Amino acid sequence: MNHNHYCIIMAGGIGSRFWPMSRQSRPKQFIDILGIGKTFLQMTFERYAQIVPAENILIVTAERYRDLVKEQLPSMPDENILLEPYKRNTAPCVAYATYKLYKKNPKATVIVAPADHLILGDAQFNDTMRAALKAAEQSDRLYTIGIEPTRPETNYGYIQINKAFSEKVGTHSSFQVKTFTEKPNAELAKVFLETGEFFWNSGMFIWKLQSIKDELERCLPEVTTLFHGGEDFYYTNGEAAFIRRVYEDCPAISIDYGVMEKTQKAWVFLSDFGWTDLGTWESVYEQVPKDDAANVVSAEVRMVDEVEGSVVLETNPGKLVVARGFEKMMVVDMPDVLLVCRRDDKTIKDIVTDLTVKDKIDRYL
Amino acid sequence: MNHNHYCIIMAGGIGSRFWPMSRQSRPKQFIDILGIGKTFLQMTFERYAQIVPAENILIVTAERYRDLVKEQLPSMPDENILLEPYKRNTAPCVAYATYKLYKKNPKATVIVAPADHLILGDAQFNDTMRAALKAAEQSDRLYTIGIEPTRPETNYGYIQINKAFSEKVGTHSSFQVKTFTEKPNAELAKVFLETGEFFWNSGMFIWKLQSIKDELERCLPEVTTLFHGGEDFYYTNGEAAFIRRVYEDCPAISIDYGVMEKTQKAWVFLSDFGWTDLGTWESVYEQVPKDDAANVVSAEVRMVDEVEGSVVLETNPGKLVVARGFEKMMVVDMPDVLLVCRRDDKTIKDIVTDLTVKDKIDRYL
Repeated sequence: MNHNHYCIIMAGGIGSRFWPMSRQSRPKQFIDILGIGKTFLQMTFERYAQIVPAENILIVTAERYRDLVKEQLPSMPDENILLEPYKRNTAPCVAYATYKLYKKNPKATVIVAPADHLILGDAQFNDTMRAALKAAEQSDRLYTIGIEPTRPETNYGYIQINKAFSEKVGTHSSFQVKTFTEKPNAELAKVFLETGEFFWNSGMFIWKLQSIKDELERCLPEVTTLFHGGEDFYYTNGEAAFIRRVYEDCPAISIDYGVMEKTQKAWVFLSDFGWTDLGTWESVYEQVPKDDAANVVSAEVRMVDEVEGSVVLETNPGKLVVARGFEKMMVVDMPDVLLVCRRDDKTIKDIVTDLTVKDKIDRYL
Repeated sequence: MNHNHYCIIMAGGIGSRFWPMSRQSRPKQFIDILGIGKTFLQMTFERYAQIVPAENILIVTAERYRDLVKEQLPSMPDENILLEPYKRNTAPCVAYATYKLYKKNPKATVIVAPADHLILGDAQFNDTMRAALKAAEQSDRLYTIGIEPTRPETNYGYIQINKAFSEKVGTHSSFQVKTFTEKPNAELAKVFLETGEFFWNSGMFIWKLQSIKDELERCLPEVTTLFHGGEDFYYTNGEAAFIRRVYEDCPAISIDYGVMEKTQKAWVFLSDFGWTDLGTWESVYEQVPKDDAANVVSAEVRMVDEVEGSVVLETNPGKLVVARGFEKMMVVDMPDVLLVCRRDDKTIKDIVTDLTVKDKIDRYL
C-alpha cells in the first residue's frame, strides 16, 4: 500500500432517521443496525484498511463521540481521531483534516468518506478506489464517486456528467461533472435514469491534499482563514484549544455546497459496486436477510406468528417478543423507547424534531 | 352489618389470558389492569366490606401469593388469609374455608366470590347480595347469582332456571336451577337469550355454612373425609402442616362440577347489575374509558398518531411510546416481554401454553 494514501472518515453525524435505535448519544455510525456483529464505523474502517495503511486512516467526529471511537476502534492512535467541538457540517470537517494532515504529509492523496454507508462487493469497491486514488494523484481534480443507478431512486442526490470531458483509468470511466442535483421527484428520477447521464452521488471524494486545500481557499476563504496559523498547534497539546476557537467562528456549510458545486475541478469516477446510504428503515429492510415471511426479527427470544414483511428489533437482552397478526409494521424496542409504526413510515425524523422543538423532552433523543 | 355474615374471596387463580400483564408471579387479581389505581383484589375486598364486616372477609389464595395479599390488603389478619399449598381448583378451596370457619362460627352465612371480576352498579349489587344472604339464611339452598343477559355472549356459562319453583325476596326473583351449561356457540347463545330462561353464571355463591358443609359431604366425600379432624388444627400453628397433608391427597375439582351440578339444592338469585369477568383483553377494552380515537393508551410518555381502536399498555415507568399508523392492535410492553398483536387475538392463552409445553421457558410465565 502507498504510504501517501490516506482516508478521512467523517463520523460526526447525529442522523435521526434511525431513531430510536440511533440516538444523539450513539448515532447510526456507532451501532450495528444490520445485526452483523460490527458497527458501521468498524465496517468502514476495515473497508479502507484494505486500501490505505491502517495508520493513515483518520476519523473526524464530535467531541462527545471520542469514547465510542476509542471503544470501537481501540487500535486507533489519538492523533488520528479529530474531535469537532461544534457541529459545522462537512466543509469545516474536511478543512480541519486537510490542514492537520497537510502539516504531516503535504504529498498525501486522500479518500474522504462517510462512516455510515453500506458497500456490497468489496473487490469491485477496492478496485474502484485504488484507480480513483491513482487518477487523483495524477491531476488536481476533485473526484467524487458516482454510482450507476439501477432504479429511479428518489432518496439520493444525482450527479450529471459532462460527456465532452472524459478519461479512462484502466477499466474505469471518469467524467467532468456538469451539475450536482438534489433528490428528484419520481418523474424526474425516471428521466435521470433514462438519459444515462445521471449517477447517484455517493458522498465519497478522492483528491490530492494540495488540490482540496487550494480549492477550499478559493471557494471558502471565510472558512480557511480561520485555520491559518494552525500548523503551530496540530499534533500538539494546543490543538484542541485552537480548534475550539476556529469552530466557534466557523460557518456551518457542506463540502458539496461550499466546494463541489462551485469548483471547476469536480470530476466523477463511475462505478457500479453495491452502495446504499441506508438512509431509511425501508432501505435497511431491503438490504438485510429476511425470513420466509419476509420478516426481519432481531429478538433473541421470540414467538412470531402470522406476521409478514415486518421489522422487529428488540434490543433488550433476553426480552421475549410475541408478535402476531400484522404485516409491514416496524417494531423497535429499546430500554427507554418503544416505536411501533408502518415499515415505510417516512416521518420518523419528524418525531425527533417534535420531541426537540414541541415537547422539549431531550432525554429520548 | 350482621356478624354472622362472611365473605370468602377466591384469589388463587393464575389466569393466563392477560399475559404478559398478568404473570404466575402476579396474576390478574393482583394487578390494576384497568389503570384505576386499585387491583381487582382491592376492589373486591372493598366491595364486600360494604356488605359484611371487614374482619369477616377471608381470602383463599396460593402460598406464593401470601405477600401480595399482605401488601395489597395490609389490614387483613393472618388467620383470614387461607393459603393453599397446591392448585386443586375451587372445591377444596371452598371446603378448606368452610371447615375452618365452621370451627369459629357454625352459624355463619357466607358469600363465596372470585377476586377478579368487574362489578358496575354498587348500590344494585349490594342490594342483591344482602337479599341473597337473607334468603340463604332462611333455607338450606345453595344460591348462585345469575345475571340477566344483555347480549348472546359466548364467553360465559349459563344457568337455566326452573320456572316451576320460584321465590320472591323483596324485589328480587329467585328460581331453582334446572341446568348449568357450558359456554354456548353463537347460535345457541341467541336461543338462550330469546327463551328468557337462561342467565349468565357469575360464579358467585351464597349459602349457610351448614348448608354447603352438608352438601360437600354428600357430593364430595372423597374431598371432605380429608378435612376430618381438622378442627384441632385450624387457628393454630399446626394448620399449615395439616392443610399441606390434605391438599397433597386432594383431587382437583371445581365447586361447580363437584357440588352445584349434582345437588338438588341449587337455586339462582337473579340480578342485572353490571358484571363482567373481564376474561379477555377485548372485554377490558370495552370496559375502560377510551380517547377520541377509541384508543386506550397507558404509557406515561407517548406520541400517538393515526392510531385507532387500539390498546397500548406501557408498564416501564418513563418509557416513551411512539405509536403511528395502525388500528385495532394491542401493544403490551413489560420489562421482560413485548406483545404486539390484534386487539381481538383470542389465542393469548395458547402463547402461555406454548411457552410452557413446547418451549419449556418458564421465566416469562
